[in-house]
Amino acid sequence: MAVKYHRLKNEKNPLLIILSGPSGVGKDAVLSRMKESGYPLYYTVTATTRPRRPGEVDGVDYLFISQEKFAEMIRNGEFLEWANVYGNLYGVPKKPVKQALASSQDVIIKVDVQGATTIKNILPQAVFIFLAPPSVEELYQRLKERKTESTAELELRLRKARQEMESLSLFDYVVVNYRDKVDLAISQIQAIITAEKCRVNQRIINPEVM
Amino acid sequence: MAVKYHRLKNEKNPLLIILSGPSGVGKDAVLSRMKESGYPLYYTVTATTRPRRPGEVDGVDYLFISQEKFAEMIRNGEFLEWANVYGNLYGVPKKPVKQALASSQDVIIKVDVQGATTIKNILPQAVFIFLAPPSVEELYQRLKERKTESTAELELRLRKARQEMESLSLFDYVVVNYRDKVDLAISQIQAIITAEKCRVNQRIINPEVM
Repeated sequence: MAVKYHRLKNEKNPLLIILSGPSGVGKDAVLSRMKESGYPLYYTVTATTRPRRPGEVDGVDYLFISQEKFAEMIRNGEFLEWANVYGNLYGVPKKPVKQALASSQDVIIKVDVQGATTIKNILPQAVFIFLAPPSVEELYQRLKERKTESTAELELRLRKARQEMESLSLFDYVVVNYRDKVDLAISQIQAIITAEKCRVNQRIINPEVM
Repeated sequence: MAVKYHRLKNEKNPLLIILSGPSGVGKDAVLSRMKESGYPLYYTVTATTRPRRPGEVDGVDYLFISQEKFAEMIRNGEFLEWANVYGNLYGVPKKPVKQALASSQDVIIKVDVQGATTIKNILPQAVFIFLAPPSVEELYQRLKERKTESTAELELRLRKARQEMESLSLFDYVVVNYRDKVDLAISQIQAIITAEKCRVNQRIINPEVM
């Protein structure tokens, strides 16, 4: 028991944080704001085959790669999780995640709800956070304002968002991302990380299973 | 599931937080600083038969009552938990805790480690926080500086503190109270409260069982 107490003080177990939620809820905005503020986490960059949107930077917002490269990475088992989302491929490269955990850095991964479910099966000891809109109607407005989807795509995303809300019970925490209150969501995510580091029964991530 | 999501947004389930830890670790200092800062909690006042120390205010720091009054409250079942600590009686009155929870206020109760164990049996859904010293040696120094105990009492408290450290596994969280860093401990306690309010599986306290 003395050993355990000693171990807690060392705070050496890195956390693996999975940030998920419906498309359009603001996962990217939350993460880029946290990153800008210098909050100490390893921010995983997702690889994707979707076209770059105005303002997005390759290697920062996403790793923009070709269909061919993506297919090769799948064949080599280089993704922790990958998915076809509305015709575009998205994947979380394993290697940087393993490296960051090995150097005791806390890691945050952004994935869609289906991806979070996949990761939950592989790494149940990760911290699962669901970023939720105040309501589905609010989500519709945000997606509409983003003007990156057609009306048909919008409807598809909304239907999916309703389904995704039903996966809430797979998550440990839910953080509501209110409009113009992204700092509130960020402070709650940071509080969750701080609290998890104070847990007596610490979560231990085994990178070998990835 | 839609119902659950709705419920989470309402944030109506009050938390019952149990702050415990060895004598001399700084539970009182942490709580009075939190209270002064206006952090919104119902701060339970413990009843005691021990003599008032210089600077302590009746009804604020403790409810200083006679042995006779204490015995009467025990007979009437008015304590959530009570204990004989080094010859003095300490008890947590039930009534204000029940009233605060009924009005959806989060409640924090300060108790010794034995008291936390008792409350864990009655109310396992409470949030149990162990305030720990950086080391037992550090705790000895603090108790010595407080100059309220004789050398024999100091030895007794230290032996007990070592035993109490072994109760850590009964707790949900451990917060280390470093010397001159009480604000760090407070920010961790506040983070734990924020995180607990974001939990998908909310803790539901039943005041009826008290």
